[in-house]
Amino acid sequence: MSKSPVTVVGLGPMGQALAGAFVEAGHPTTVWNRTAAKAEALVARGAVLAPTAADALAASELVIVCVIDYDAVHEILEPAAGALKGRTLVNLTADSPERARSTAAWAAEQGADYLDGAIMTPTVTIGTPAAVVLFSGPENVFAAHRSALETLAGTTAYLGADHGRAAAHDVALLDIFWTAMSGIVHAFALAKAENISAQELAPFAQGIVGLLPDIVTDFAAEVDEGTYPNHVTNVNSAAAGMAHIIHAAEDRGIDVGVLRAAEAVARRAAAEGHGADGFSRLTEVLGRPSA
Amino acid sequence: MSKSPVTVVGLGPMGQALAGAFVEAGHPTTVWNRTAAKAEALVARGAVLAPTAADALAASELVIVCVIDYDAVHEILEPAAGALKGRTLVNLTADSPERARSTAAWAAEQGADYLDGAIMTPTVTIGTPAAVVLFSGPENVFAAHRSALETLAGTTAYLGADHGRAAAHDVALLDIFWTAMSGIVHAFALAKAENISAQELAPFAQGIVGLLPDIVTDFAAEVDEGTYPNHVTNVNSAAAGMAHIIHAAEDRGIDVGVLRAAEAVARRAAAEGHGADGFSRLTEVLGRPSA
Repeated sequence: MSKSPVTVVGLGPMGQALAGAFVEAGHPTTVWNRTAAKAEALVARGAVLAPTAADALAASELVIVCVIDYDAVHEILEPAAGALKGRTLVNLTADSPERARSTAAWAAEQGADYLDGAIMTPTVTIGTPAAVVLFSGPENVFAAHRSALETLAGTTAYLGADHGRAAAHDVALLDIFWTAMSGIVHAFALAKAENISAQELAPFAQGIVGLLPDIVTDFAAEVDEGTYPNHVTNVNSAAAGMAHIIHAAEDRGIDVGVLRAAEAVARRAAAEGHGADGFSRLTEVLGRPSA
Repeated sequence: MSKSPVTVVGLGPMGQALAGAFVEAGHPTTVWNRTAAKAEALVARGAVLAPTAADALAASELVIVCVIDYDAVHEILEPAAGALKGRTLVNLTADSPERARSTAAWAAEQGADYLDGAIMTPTVTIGTPAAVVLFSGPENVFAAHRSALETLAGTTAYLGADHGRAAAHDVALLDIFWTAMSGIVHAFALAKAENISAQELAPFAQGIVGLLPDIVTDFAAEVDEGTYPNHVTNVNSAAAGMAHIIHAAEDRGIDVGVLRAAEAVARRAAAEGHGADGFSRLTEVLGRPSA
């Protein structure tokens, strides 16, 4: 069975990876980018470079857009919006849940179906089993294009009809990622100041990050139940532990902004009477304005 | 061969676990606690309750102390210091590297050998292969008591002669732990505000925390080499990503103190000309005062 045509708008590193995966899988692939030169390698592999964005949208029922942000999405698509009618626009650009919803509303005004997506793995994974891409929007639209979209990633998860849902997952997951990354670089700074090389600390650090998957599982159940049992440590001991790290870091002249902010949340929870609760209580405290 | 006598001072949950492991392994075990009632279960299992702290120190050449903090260590041991001469004091109380070093100096004045230790795993692991306890201090002192100390944990790591080294590892590892934990509870708060349950997010969150071990390995090599290659993401894109999460969280009225502090470090690195470097560059930026 011949593969359905696909258009990819935006040929940054991720857009090139997406288009490359479609070409590789035998989809007739039309591409467009503001700087046409970025299409060269793809054209050599069999993609067709459209002369204008409108031509690119006209070329395929399924249109993937992946650019730097939603401002760029609108800058590119609005002048060509007449060509969107009857198309399915799949926006893999990262932005906020609110912007995903407003872009969905705009696409509807143009007579286009719309799915919003979030790519959770690096460029090099695209088109391989290791890639993870999340989608949200109308289920029938996802179902209609599922086969083509599965070309992109070993895991393509459909998250629900709310167009903002993929972006909401994306920001929450990046929240874990960047906060944990901040802790890793900070710990290496503290270790270094104590004459412990990063590679000496690393095997023990592996042990610490290895505790996190079980904690994610436990905390998720606690948060959904709204019960915060104190099984290993409580909010008070967490605050004391953070104060302890802050003290050691300040002794060495290391920036403690992140830890101070984390400690402030734990102290606030304690001040509100939750000091003896488990640490997962902070999810509930973070989500409402301070008293 | 009969096992050597051991004294355990401090019978909070961790002290009880330590003393219990020694009793279980057949070490003649003397215990002492300010509140004697906490010794009851241990005495029933064969431990001997000393009437005073000085009697407890006199009872064994190897003395383990594990109390709430170093203030408590000194409050208990100073009045009984005459009994410390010729003993080996192993302090498993958590505190800062500096306090470990000053307590080592104090112990030397009393004529005692001193090891400082850090217990990296929960109470329930003590005496099992899952437990990890780190030690620092004179190598010959560790070697002399290694066999008894191995009773406590499957992994007993000797880290070097600097008495502060175990505590320094401890604070750096807790730094990773508490910062990552702060990210996890924050992500669940953000997800919840977007009508995503914690258990819906959890499988994807497992994927994210599953990326951290390789990142620890990569960053450790980069930090030790002082080179910060931009392989997946750079400081600028990290700062932009954090700003993005902050925006989404603020839209939902969620506290963003930790992320703002993390973003400020990345922005500072960018302002100092490191925007195109890999994120591990922040280790070097955090470790020196801002320009």
